[in-house]
Amino acid sequence: MGEVQRILITGGQVVTGQTLLRADVLIEGEHIAGILSPGAVREVDRVISAAGCFVLPGVVDAHTHIKLDTGIYQTADDWETGSRAAAFGGVTTVIDFANQIPGRPYAEALAARQTEATGAVIDYALHMVVLRPEVELDALQASLGELMALGIPSIKLFTTYRPNYYLDDAAILRVLRAMPDGMIAMVHCENDSMVTAATQALVEQGKTDWRHHGEARPAEAEAEAVNRVLYLASLVGARVYIVHNSTADATSLVNRMRSQAEGKQRGRFFCETCPQYVLLHDSVYAGEHPERYILQPPLRSAHHMEQLAAYVRAGMVDVLSTDSCDYTLAQKRATRDFTRTPGGLPGVETLLPLMFTQFVDHVGLPRLMAMLAENPARLFGLYPRKGTILPGSDADVVIYDPAPQSVIRHQDLHYLAGYTPFEGMPVRGRVRMVLSRGEVIVDEGAFKGKAGRGQFLPGGRSLDPC
Amino acid sequence: MGEVQRILITGGQVVTGQTLLRADVLIEGEHIAGILSPGAVREVDRVISAAGCFVLPGVVDAHTHIKLDTGIYQTADDWETGSRAAAFGGVTTVIDFANQIPGRPYAEALAARQTEATGAVIDYALHMVVLRPEVELDALQASLGELMALGIPSIKLFTTYRPNYYLDDAAILRVLRAMPDGMIAMVHCENDSMVTAATQALVEQGKTDWRHHGEARPAEAEAEAVNRVLYLASLVGARVYIVHNSTADATSLVNRMRSQAEGKQRGRFFCETCPQYVLLHDSVYAGEHPERYILQPPLRSAHHMEQLAAYVRAGMVDVLSTDSCDYTLAQKRATRDFTRTPGGLPGVETLLPLMFTQFVDHVGLPRLMAMLAENPARLFGLYPRKGTILPGSDADVVIYDPAPQSVIRHQDLHYLAGYTPFEGMPVRGRVRMVLSRGEVIVDEGAFKGKAGRGQFLPGGRSLDPC
Amino acid sequence: MGEVQRILITGGQVVTGQTLLRADVLIEGEHIAGILSPGAVREVDRVISAAGCFVLPGVVDAHTHIKLDTGIYQTADDWETGSRAAAFGGVTTVIDFANQIPGRPYAEALAARQTEATGAVIDYALHMVVLRPEVELDALQASLGELMALGIPSIKLFTTYRPNYYLDDAAILRVLRAMPDGMIAMVHCENDSMVTAATQALVEQGKTDWRHHGEARPAEAEAEAVNRVLYLASLVGARVYIVHNSTADATSLVNRMRSQAEGKQRGRFFCETCPQYVLLHDSVYAGEHPERYILQPPLRSAHHMEQLAAYVRAGMVDVLSTDSCDYTLAQKRATRDFTRTPGGLPGVETLLPLMFTQFVDHVGLPRLMAMLAENPARLFGLYPRKGTILPGSDADVVIYDPAPQSVIRHQDLHYLAGYTPFEGMPVRGRVRMVLSRGEVIVDEGAFKGKAGRGQFLPGGRSLDPC
Amino acid sequence: MGEVQRILITGGQVVTGQTLLRADVLIEGEHIAGILSPGAVREVDRVISAAGCFVLPGVVDAHTHIKLDTGIYQTADDWETGSRAAAFGGVTTVIDFANQIPGRPYAEALAARQTEATGAVIDYALHMVVLRPEVELDALQASLGELMALGIPSIKLFTTYRPNYYLDDAAILRVLRAMPDGMIAMVHCENDSMVTAATQALVEQGKTDWRHHGEARPAEAEAEAVNRVLYLASLVGARVYIVHNSTADATSLVNRMRSQAEGKQRGRFFCETCPQYVLLHDSVYAGEHPERYILQPPLRSAHHMEQLAAYVRAGMVDVLSTDSCDYTLAQKRATRDFTRTPGGLPGVETLLPLMFTQFVDHVGLPRLMAMLAENPARLFGLYPRKGTILPGSDADVVIYDPAPQSVIRHQDLHYLAGYTPFEGMPVRGRVRMVLSRGEVIVDEGAFKGKAGRGQFLPGGRSLDPC
Repeated sequence: MGEVQRILITGGQVVTGQTLLRADVLIEGEHIAGILSPGAVREVDRVISAAGCFVLPGVVDAHTHIKLDTGIYQTADDWETGSRAAAFGGVTTVIDFANQIPGRPYAEALAARQTEATGAVIDYALHMVVLRPEVELDALQASLGELMALGIPSIKLFTTYRPNYYLDDAAILRVLRAMPDGMIAMVHCENDSMVTAATQALVEQGKTDWRHHGEARPAEAEAEAVNRVLYLASLVGARVYIVHNSTADATSLVNRMRSQAEGKQRGRFFCETCPQYVLLHDSVYAGEHPERYILQPPLRSAHHMEQLAAYVRAGMVDVLSTDSCDYTLAQKRATRDFTRTPGGLPGVETLLPLMFTQFVDHVGLPRLMAMLAENPARLFGLYPRKGTILPGSDADVVIYDPAPQSVIRHQDLHYLAGYTPFEGMPVRGRVRMVLSRGEVIVDEGAFKGKAGRGQFLPGGRSLDPC
Repeated sequence: MGEVQRILITGGQVVTGQTLLRADVLIEGEHIAGILSPGAVREVDRVISAAGCFVLPGVVDAHTHIKLDTGIYQTADDWETGSRAAAFGGVTTVIDFANQIPGRPYAEALAARQTEATGAVIDYALHMVVLRPEVELDALQASLGELMALGIPSIKLFTTYRPNYYLDDAAILRVLRAMPDGMIAMVHCENDSMVTAATQALVEQGKTDWRHHGEARPAEAEAEAVNRVLYLASLVGARVYIVHNSTADATSLVNRMRSQAEGKQRGRFFCETCPQYVLLHDSVYAGEHPERYILQPPLRSAHHMEQLAAYVRAGMVDVLSTDSCDYTLAQKRATRDFTRTPGGLPGVETLLPLMFTQFVDHVGLPRLMAMLAENPARLFGLYPRKGTILPGSDADVVIYDPAPQSVIRHQDLHYLAGYTPFEGMPVRGRVRMVLSRGEVIVDEGAFKGKAGRGQFLPGGRSLDPC
Repeated sequence: MGEVQRILITGGQVVTGQTLLRADVLIEGEHIAGILSPGAVREVDRVISAAGCFVLPGVVDAHTHIKLDTGIYQTADDWETGSRAAAFGGVTTVIDFANQIPGRPYAEALAARQTEATGAVIDYALHMVVLRPEVELDALQASLGELMALGIPSIKLFTTYRPNYYLDDAAILRVLRAMPDGMIAMVHCENDSMVTAATQALVEQGKTDWRHHGEARPAEAEAEAVNRVLYLASLVGARVYIVHNSTADATSLVNRMRSQAEGKQRGRFFCETCPQYVLLHDSVYAGEHPERYILQPPLRSAHHMEQLAAYVRAGMVDVLSTDSCDYTLAQKRATRDFTRTPGGLPGVETLLPLMFTQFVDHVGLPRLMAMLAENPARLFGLYPRKGTILPGSDADVVIYDPAPQSVIRHQDLHYLAGYTPFEGMPVRGRVRMVLSRGEVIVDEGAFKGKAGRGQFLPGGRSLDPC
Repeated sequence: MGEVQRILITGGQVVTGQTLLRADVLIEGEHIAGILSPGAVREVDRVISAAGCFVLPGVVDAHTHIKLDTGIYQTADDWETGSRAAAFGGVTTVIDFANQIPGRPYAEALAARQTEATGAVIDYALHMVVLRPEVELDALQASLGELMALGIPSIKLFTTYRPNYYLDDAAILRVLRAMPDGMIAMVHCENDSMVTAATQALVEQGKTDWRHHGEARPAEAEAEAVNRVLYLASLVGARVYIVHNSTADATSLVNRMRSQAEGKQRGRFFCETCPQYVLLHDSVYAGEHPERYILQPPLRSAHHMEQLAAYVRAGMVDVLSTDSCDYTLAQKRATRDFTRTPGGLPGVETLLPLMFTQFVDHVGLPRLMAMLAENPARLFGLYPRKGTILPGSDADVVIYDPAPQSVIRHQDLHYLAGYTPFEGMPVRGRVRMVLSRGEVIVDEGAFKGKAGRGQFLPGGRSLDPC
């Protein structure tokens, strides 16, 4: 075994596959080398005790926006600071986005984004935002095939945000039809005309104060677009993944479509939600700091929030991700006009503790980690390298101590935002240690990794979640 | 590690959880001690090469009838011969049945059946056939609670076979309502009056020759009873498991109920089918040896067979089991009257190779082993001790070589029946080695175990299948 | 036009088909001769003013038990008194029952019951209760075909009441399969074993006081049987009509089955409910006079009552009928033991005013009369002779004045029972005049008809309701 | 009765409500004065024998385009010729369209179109095409309320035809939400971007020959838009009517939505199809005269045609209308470019005989006339004045002789188009006489009416179809 370092994590309860086991985890170099009964292997270079703790696969946040530049706003973070905050939260993989450069091969967009990401401290993969799909079906199939070959099995499509991101139904259907086998389309679902009309009406009435933000993007705009996109996908048998469900209706529609689909069609419709939609609701817009909660889609009514949480408990949601955007309070407060306030909340660092606290008692730890790690890894082609603790997988491991009780405080976090939307929320448990490819990068609150150690992860075929 | 023998199975592809991995399997004594990257551990007492082979969890046949005595007929096997045939087929656990002794505590029925099983060469668990449920709900809850405490989380109920096994709807509903949390009811679903009427009509017309057997138990009798039992279970939120689905309709009804159920109700309805229902159809009753195919429910039309197989491929069936009964040809041929011919087919030994051949290309090996091992272990409270290869699990392992091509021949099998209903069917692959609790009991076709080494397995709570 | 008397009912609003019209109704002899614009015809023998009133088709009560002899109990009425009470309530047709005489042609049962009915003052039809269906399908088809030819397109089947009425599932399925095209099966749906078990449990606990009656026949026994019978009917494509729905679940199941059925299968599943199930609930069993409310199925919870009424308003119920049985208070009070108290409530006379009051504002008068007259006439083969006001139809007409407000008082009614379960309920409107085949039989509360004028109505094919 | 002429139509079978009766129909002046048993009335001014014939309510064609001016193309007919052709076919009411004049009160658009229609020989109503709905909900509610008060309960919305007719989803939802109670929205459903993209692709490939017309408007564009519009309507509980269903999917979606809707929501979703979609399919585009079949939506595959016809037979379609446009062959042939060929087929005159021939045996005459007369009259607020033969209704009556066999020949028709798309199709029966408001306007093939006698019909609330 020579020069490769062997680490043994002992004494913990390990989440592997969808199981929770009392076992030791053997790491050799960058990989998991074994899951073992306690004491089965002893000759190692380092023993890390996980007594009293859970040994979890590193979290895969399938929806982040690090160093996002929308053309108008730029988030405060860069890949070093952004991915370091993630690491503190037990996130060892982020899947972020590259934007197609219209008229250029996808490889260029990918290379450009990879250059930006050179400072990453954890591994990352990329979804490709398709902005100008080829008109000819053959050409479109060819370019998406190339994208797949570049290690990008997931594309992102928008039903809103004219003129940059918006694709009309014909374009969406064309892309869904052209996707190679194994590719999955993430879709941001809000009806563009409904959002535009609601926003314009507010603007015309002078209601652009932050507190009107929620009214600008009605819940029914999301539900309509989900209903439509699911139908388009069913026409061509495509795999679609509805991002950041903020309404109960969206989730219900995805699941109804799943149960109507017969046999192998099942599983073509997937969805995620985010902590903000199951923990917060729109009463904050009437509160003291409405600007902190400006994001798209906006927070919804308490009814939607509660029902969405119930749907998570009922197994109707595949992935919990963050849609994290690290804008600062100063950026948020630059104007009092919601139409000119950057939309998006920080959240990667708090994903694991908040979701553990909210759901572990109801769904159990294996199911929780399925939503936080294995499912995103499967859906976006990173499994079994990421998302699980199995021999051969990357040694991305979180040692999580369920005992400590604390509350979320922004001064304890590592974002640049200067606030957290979850301020004051109680959490159970604490990340004690984080390993990324066998290297301890977070240890009892101290960062041990270094900038640039993160690697780009080419993805394979999209697999069904477990 | 001292005296405990350490075995390392190397070079194979391991099915663990729902994953297929290139890994070594470490065994210490009776248990799995580790799943390891190749070469991660070397100091062992014995190395077994699985090069070119799959390393599978031992099959759990959730529905066997070894040494069955119906009062009228006795199968030819005893626990030694019956379980040995199972072992040859890669089955390392059978779940058989004990019959309630009316008026006596369940412990007595359990003890009596355990006494019969002392010769077992592999481990076994038992379902309890409930024949005379207490009338008072309190008393019934108490006795089922005791049964659960005895390690029996699964009961068997019959909708037919008057006067011995039959329970009326009131009794079935009462039992479903009284079951403690974590218990599951297996139900034999055939409408008693429809089976009786069809049989009587044949008897009155003198049509008792074997070839009329299928007409005596119409497909709609199964479908009706499934529809009814699912509804009864939905009234009280019980877990039910429909045994030996022989019709497409039964499976379709189970799955429709699953998709109608909301949230946590999902997963309360489960089902199995058996090799005979996806490989054989009722044309055999017009053939040379109709007596060989007398079983309840009977073989159905080619349409049902093909649709059932399609449903298995579509993920709509939870478990593949055998309902095996080892009657001899002589017993089958004692009269030419189907009403007096013992019903049931031998099958444990051929379960794995036949189902591997039929389904592995469509569903993949992890899903196949879910149906053959992990799901029955989960549903009947044996997981994770049985049904999976994970540290701490019993070291029940099958080394299966997918390369050899052969055909099923009764002379190669170890039943006492003297025939197999699957004679001449081609199979892919061969069981090379079988370990039961760390002991090699079958090695290249030679039996190495010994009578009486099998243990009774007390079961815990019924878990949802994966 | 000679000797035939011509009557013109003028000035009212006429319900004809599913329409409400300001029109005159011309009667010639026994038949409707025209629906006319006011003033279009003037030369008549008699003009009856319906100013301010509705002119309704005579009510068809599809479910009565006049002069019922169960073998144990006999209702107090005979056909003269029973049908006279009906006439007072605007009911001009009752559809009652004849019981098959096992082993004898249906014609004999029919003749016997017609003999009993010779005193009828209004017309009547008969459903045939099938008690011992032939075992051979051919013979069964033949006898049901003869029944149809005798003018009986509707049969009644029971899932309960052993040993007299009960049919097992095989028999029910056989009958449904054998029914000639155009025949419809009414089914009393309560799971026999569930009712028996619940009753026995009460008996064993000594809980036979009237107030326990409801517990003896659980709501789920009805729902289960409805679910089962609908499924049996779907297997053979039969027309079934679920009688006296007392639970919301029963109605919901019928309607779910309708919406699942494709195209022409639609409309094969029908149901009725009765005034007692939408106006009364089980709190009466804890009241002063529980014996007055003993019937099968029993009154249910307030939830069921309210939901059933909502289903009627939503168009989910085809027919409103009474299941009327005219037992006297003395009979009801003979013992304090519900198992020995005759079950059934009087109700024909109050059907129209109660249902008018309860539903007319929500569903409108045409829909109300569809449930009270046209639908039962269609379903049981009497349309267009009965159930509508159209040229050629029998001149069965009710002049109903919506203005008077009153309350139900048993002393105003014409039953022999000596009480009404609806005592004290407010009603809107009053029957001013009733014509049966052109003859005024009730006029401002005075009976003008005479015994024996009622005729037996042979029925044709069962038609779908409107 | 004085000066008012009394006509008696005797000896026929009358369709009234949903019934077929042997009866006489009495007409006084412009109205039906009675439905009578044969011989009940004799003193009349004129007796018309309908012996051997059916006496039908005049057909209400709910979807015509007489004297259509799209801005680019003008149909050849004017109201005199167009409505005379209709009369020859037994159509006594057409419901045509007025286009909103943006920025002006609806009354102006209505007045303008009424002026054009002064030559009409039969009565007509108008749907209002909403082109620029007010942005403010209050203003929109007010203007639609005014429209309703003007006698226009039905509006037309388009999901396609930019820039003139197209409304985006926000506008459609806003209109659906603002509609007063009793109003119904007809929606032309084709996904605009999908139609545009498909057309552009053909144009770019130079495939603008007529034979490519069908490819320009894919079936899935219709299905998608139907799915979307139904969902929008469900969000606000609006009444919608999907026009000219050309695909099986559209009809299936409407009916699925109906069966999912609970209780009173039922009946909010309606649809029509047209003779061309159940009698013709897209093979004609490969034939000799593709230009004759250019219309939007285009003819579909034989599968769609057959399935749509099956859905009509199964009762899943509410209305049969024509979408008739009387372009001449010369206009059709002006260019060989489908993008510049006027779209639309003549058809009012052949509606009744073709649909009688196609469907009467399967659905019966009452149901056929429900789809051709009563349902459109109900849905568009004209019932009971139009669509039925009841006292007080307008005396719009067709005497239809079912005996003659003939084939459709354009030279027998009265369009200006110079061809019929149904050339050579066999038809059963013939229109013998047509009365409009009591006046014989067609008698044995001779036109007896005169220009300008037709009246505008203000509509009331939209009612559910029967």
